[in-house]
Amino acid sequence: MKFGGTSVADIERIRHVATLVKREVERGNKVAVVVSAMAGETNKLVAWTNDAARPEGASRAELPDQREYDVVVAAGEQITAGLLSITLNAMGLKARSWLGWQVPINTSAVHGSARIEGVPASDMKTAIENGEIAVVAGFQGVAPGVRISTLGRGGSDTSAVAVAAGIGAARCDIYTDVDGVYTTDPRIVPKARRLEKIAYEEMLEMASLGAKVLQTRSVEIAMLHRVPTRVLSTFTPDVGGTLLCDEEDIVEKKPVTGIAYSRDEAKITLHKVPDRPGVASAIFGPLADAGVNVDMIVQNVSEDGKTTDLTFTCTRGELPRALAAIEARAQEIQYRDVTHDSAVAKISIIGIGMRAHPGVASTMFRTLSDKGINIQVISTSEIKVSVLIAEEYVELAVRALHSAYELDAA
Amino acid sequence: MKFGGTSVADIERIRHVATLVKREVERGNKVAVVVSAMAGETNKLVAWTNDAARPEGASRAELPDQREYDVVVAAGEQITAGLLSITLNAMGLKARSWLGWQVPINTSAVHGSARIEGVPASDMKTAIENGEIAVVAGFQGVAPGVRISTLGRGGSDTSAVAVAAGIGAARCDIYTDVDGVYTTDPRIVPKARRLEKIAYEEMLEMASLGAKVLQTRSVEIAMLHRVPTRVLSTFTPDVGGTLLCDEEDIVEKKPVTGIAYSRDEAKITLHKVPDRPGVASAIFGPLADAGVNVDMIVQNVSEDGKTTDLTFTCTRGELPRALAAIEARAQEIQYRDVTHDSAVAKISIIGIGMRAHPGVASTMFRTLSDKGINIQVISTSEIKVSVLIAEEYVELAVRALHSAYELDAA
Repeated sequence: MKFGGTSVADIERIRHVATLVKREVERGNKVAVVVSAMAGETNKLVAWTNDAARPEGASRAELPDQREYDVVVAAGEQITAGLLSITLNAMGLKARSWLGWQVPINTSAVHGSARIEGVPASDMKTAIENGEIAVVAGFQGVAPGVRISTLGRGGSDTSAVAVAAGIGAARCDIYTDVDGVYTTDPRIVPKARRLEKIAYEEMLEMASLGAKVLQTRSVEIAMLHRVPTRVLSTFTPDVGGTLLCDEEDIVEKKPVTGIAYSRDEAKITLHKVPDRPGVASAIFGPLADAGVNVDMIVQNVSEDGKTTDLTFTCTRGELPRALAAIEARAQEIQYRDVTHDSAVAKISIIGIGMRAHPGVASTMFRTLSDKGINIQVISTSEIKVSVLIAEEYVELAVRALHSAYELDAA
Repeated sequence: MKFGGTSVADIERIRHVATLVKREVERGNKVAVVVSAMAGETNKLVAWTNDAARPEGASRAELPDQREYDVVVAAGEQITAGLLSITLNAMGLKARSWLGWQVPINTSAVHGSARIEGVPASDMKTAIENGEIAVVAGFQGVAPGVRISTLGRGGSDTSAVAVAAGIGAARCDIYTDVDGVYTTDPRIVPKARRLEKIAYEEMLEMASLGAKVLQTRSVEIAMLHRVPTRVLSTFTPDVGGTLLCDEEDIVEKKPVTGIAYSRDEAKITLHKVPDRPGVASAIFGPLADAGVNVDMIVQNVSEDGKTTDLTFTCTRGELPRALAAIEARAQEIQYRDVTHDSAVAKISIIGIGMRAHPGVASTMFRTLSDKGINIQVISTSEIKVSVLIAEEYVELAVRALHSAYELDAA
């Protein structure tokens, strides 16, 4: 069972979480619980680290030492794990907290956004088998050198799935503030439907293409270790929920399962780039070195046989770094000029049924065209089609596609 | 260097602490720093644990699970250790935090008030020798079973001295909100003088008899390992300070070095107890079993040769437990009745010079008698005399004794 920051925001809510855990125990299940920091705590701790990193007299904060940042921020989950254990013990259950270094949750050395590398939780597993509830501090682990590490924002989902895989859990229940995974964002499309089931591959695309319900890395681990993972609401735990499962376990395969969108997109175009071998690596090598994750790429057909236009996308946060990297190599790349646009968004349709249904992409293009929405860039994979459009059309596009693929609730 | 909660109450003060550390490094010294939680943090965390331990619907809080209490409360010092390390690194110094389990600071299993049993800090010592500043989370350690433990209130002083002993430090500087150890509490006696030096034995008596400047256990460890320990002010570090040292290092030995007082006293009298062998153990055995620390004891001379009155003291917090233990054994002890009084206080004069100066105690008794103060109980050791008096006379008694022993500042 995993509970996020809103679910453990104060002692009253922690008590509610404890009753959900108790219910699970009374059903005869053995339980490990993964908890986030109380809502607001992490932000407070992060603000302190930024404040501490500001040299005397300077107005701008430097980046805090990342290893020590982890020591400070990990305290948030430690506090929740202790408080929930106290609550469970006070209710007559047997519980103990497990911090990242105690489990252990082994991670890489990239402090601040470490990657889980293994959860050899044999002591904890023994404790659980002996009837003790294990309350695990999410979001944290232990890096080489026995230093505290954190996984970066949203990392508690990943902790939960990795712990479930590590102890061989029969199921991983992610309790959150929504009651499942929807066909698309219900704030944009009121007719969005909750999905009973979604294939791991689909959820992975949904998460990485903008759906915020689960962190991408957590879905990867669930898929890799085939952990049956449920998303359900802390506040209405008996209503609905969505199960992440194997493709074979989904009987009715519609062409499109869900629609995701992302506004965190920026587009860069290099005009009149020489159309010769090696030019792509001259561009994308330096971008990779600058830590820019290039997403969509399109190269126009050369008109004059000598030059071409090349467009790619990255996140808005990476845009300044991307422009700087390109401009630093202007001599080598020999483009005429470079333009950029941050008022763009990516809309994606996702579905394992796509493999069996031809013509899914053309329905997308026609639907958008009918609404007068211009497609700037296209990228596809076996189970998704993504298009880049002007940001102002996001809601219109998502609603039109939701209807076109017959996803609207009755 | 050790800094308490007021010294690290916010980021501004943590920055000030960092400048004091930097100054020490610039003097060519290698430094370990022990920090408390930011003032107010511990109280907040403790309140949360009490809240979490309250069963649903109950108005009274149960005692929280002590092992999990430690997990929650230890987060306070963890946060400060990380923040000070970030600040030092941002100032261009090389620093890293060390939590109790990382040092390690090994403690007993008595969660909530664990006792330090050893500080085999070889890795940390190597890091310090390599020029890194070690920032140690005070107040915490690691108990058997690799569980986080805390030392109880004021434990950071003890952490500091134990770490100093563990790494073989040349000096332990306890930075606090006063600039040293005074002849008595300056809030009661404005003419109290700061002591340049005080012998370990004297400081131990001062601390255990009510002086709040250092925790008793920290002085014990300083004395045991002969750690030269200084008490000085975070806010005026260049003024004064008091050095704890060997008796031989103090040249001028006055009969009385300091006067301590404690209001946390309660007196219990058993009337008409049979005057026969074994009665003392029938009384004090059950008290020890109930966890009552009996302090002063006086037995009146038997008037009739058959019964006597027996009086003893304990802390006010222990009074209900003490009365319950006595009343449960009423049949066995066979006293006529039991009375108690919490409006009492203990006044103590302390000084290694007492050994060489006869008549020190009689000066005390005469001084109090001259002021019309009745002495209820007396207890003595080689270097102190303590008396129990009515609480309302505390200030008067301390001031009179301070003058009588010529401790007033010119």
